[in-house]
Amino acid sequence: MGHPRISGTGTILATAAEAPGILFEAIFYIAIAAEAMTAALAAGRRSMDWFGVCMIACVTALGGGTTRDVILNHYPLIWVANPYLLLLVCGAALLTIPLVRIIARLRWTFLVLDALGLIVFTIIGCDIGISLGEPPIIVIVAGMVTGCVGGVLRDVLCNEVPLLFSSELYATVSIVTGAIYLGGLDFGLPRDGMVVAAFVVGFPLRIAAIVFKWGMPKFVFDKEGW
Amino acid sequence: MGHPRISGTGTILATAAEAPGILFEAIFYIAIAAEAMTAALAAGRRSMDWFGVCMIACVTALGGGTTRDVILNHYPLIWVANPYLLLLVCGAALLTIPLVRIIARLRWTFLVLDALGLIVFTIIGCDIGISLGEPPIIVIVAGMVTGCVGGVLRDVLCNEVPLLFSSELYATVSIVTGAIYLGGLDFGLPRDGMVVAAFVVGFPLRIAAIVFKWGMPKFVFDKEGW
Amino acid sequence: MGHPRISGTGTILATAAEAPGILFEAIFYIAIAAEAMTAALAAGRRSMDWFGVCMIACVTALGGGTTRDVILNHYPLIWVANPYLLLLVCGAALLTIPLVRIIARLRWTFLVLDALGLIVFTIIGCDIGISLGEPPIIVIVAGMVTGCVGGVLRDVLCNEVPLLFSSELYATVSIVTGAIYLGGLDFGLPRDGMVVAAFVVGFPLRIAAIVFKWGMPKFVFDKEGW
Repeated sequence: MGHPRISGTGTILATAAEAPGILFEAIFYIAIAAEAMTAALAAGRRSMDWFGVCMIACVTALGGGTTRDVILNHYPLIWVANPYLLLLVCGAALLTIPLVRIIARLRWTFLVLDALGLIVFTIIGCDIGISLGEPPIIVIVAGMVTGCVGGVLRDVLCNEVPLLFSSELYATVSIVTGAIYLGGLDFGLPRDGMVVAAFVVGFPLRIAAIVFKWGMPKFVFDKEGW
Repeated sequence: MGHPRISGTGTILATAAEAPGILFEAIFYIAIAAEAMTAALAAGRRSMDWFGVCMIACVTALGGGTTRDVILNHYPLIWVANPYLLLLVCGAALLTIPLVRIIARLRWTFLVLDALGLIVFTIIGCDIGISLGEPPIIVIVAGMVTGCVGGVLRDVLCNEVPLLFSSELYATVSIVTGAIYLGGLDFGLPRDGMVVAAFVVGFPLRIAAIVFKWGMPKFVFDKEGW
Repeated sequence: MGHPRISGTGTILATAAEAPGILFEAIFYIAIAAEAMTAALAAGRRSMDWFGVCMIACVTALGGGTTRDVILNHYPLIWVANPYLLLLVCGAALLTIPLVRIIARLRWTFLVLDALGLIVFTIIGCDIGISLGEPPIIVIVAGMVTGCVGGVLRDVLCNEVPLLFSSELYATVSIVTGAIYLGGLDFGLPRDGMVVAAFVVGFPLRIAAIVFKWGMPKFVFDKEGW
């Protein structure tokens, strides 16, 4: 990353400091803001007030990393150590309200940003799992939780069955990306290269899943009384 | 607080010990019991059994503080260190069942007790954030989480969209109260005075919000397919 | 337990090592797998995909112990220290899909396995509470949370009011079992004997509750506007 913008706390993107620099960091912030904006739309569909919009945005954008850190006992939480993240998320969420007509026309832009965010969050989660010395399965789970659980919490608070459990490949993209990233590092390949590889594999896979409606097979069980 | 009734654990109202004493402590316990009772009514609307009534009461009355402590890595949890709180909550919840006709006529009493509880919980949450050396935003969030998240968890368990996100000013009252409290302390004003100020500002604000139906503006977004 | 299969981590069944050995351990693994399979059926009723099936299974089978450990600040989590548990749970859940016709005919088998699991999880939870020096109420709560909260999280993710709060005696069986187990240990009785006693009391109680539809009294409150 070079410049020590958030090195004071040493938690947020400490590991990303070795990733291909400013671009990675920029994608992180843009993806956080994009997640906050799409979460604000979800809150708007439930006619929530401005406070509810901010809460849903925070839970969606920061809930995955928070869940990972609680699972791994990794404190302080990123947003507790860097509270300006709350301002970024709430600012993006509230900005969605006056800009809703524009944002509603940018559905594909937000899908692309969300896909980039999925890869960034997965890498950050894997990095934290690695830094804590977790075994490979847990490293990949840490990446997947970071990338995916925010959306699950959003759906629970919006009183819906989580979309993650039945829609196009999303968590699977995170798991595949995390496995490639970790596998490359274990193989001794340079971190910068593996970050690029994660994007090169994960991002097109997620976009293809949306375009071609690739999903996991569904399990349908309709027997009552069980 | 003067007398060291719960100073053995040093967690629950340690900071409140410097607040205006027994009255603060009394409001804390009464508010906990009142939250348990209104939670019991919510459980009753879902026809839960006595165990469910106790669970909903515990989650509502103690879930905010628990969430705050998990976020801030502040252990032991208040109710783990002081398990008699579970008995107080379950006792109040079960007492609601035979007394339901009386309680149902006391709606305004419980709204007042809930408003007092919101201020007490906010102050306790802020105190814990301060004692951990958190930055101002996190101190205010700690107060708000303590005061508000219990109701969110209750609504999630009752399978409803959290009321907090769309009804009269509630979290906002907590945030304003916490900001005044923290601001006064930072300005060097005495803690006792700021506790009184928190009540003088926060309590009438909450009551006025109920009476005049003050709410944050709502964000309504009804475009499907997003 | 004798053979040190998982003694490396020292967390999962460390305390159970003093319980009546291999049989206890076997019931633990069978119950985990059975919980994963019934959770898979719940996911199937919501037409989730294979990933959702695995997620619901993990949350159901491992969520109780995870919640207990977060409450008690007891790290590492069992499944983080023993990630093969995730493979066991996901394997059992995915196996449910091709075997659904067979499993759907084994409802009583699974009710029996679930009842055995409830007792095992309760004992493990109590053991962890005891090992942390928690007071009696918290030890019993630790056992109850271990045995019961997984199902609550499953129902929340499946967007249902938790069955635990309104169906036949389940948490009550866990509380009674935990109280007997802890009471016997406090009385100086040998641990092996108390494990047997827990099964002798708790298992028939749970089965009788199902057969005779024993439940706690329900609290019904239907006044709106509260």
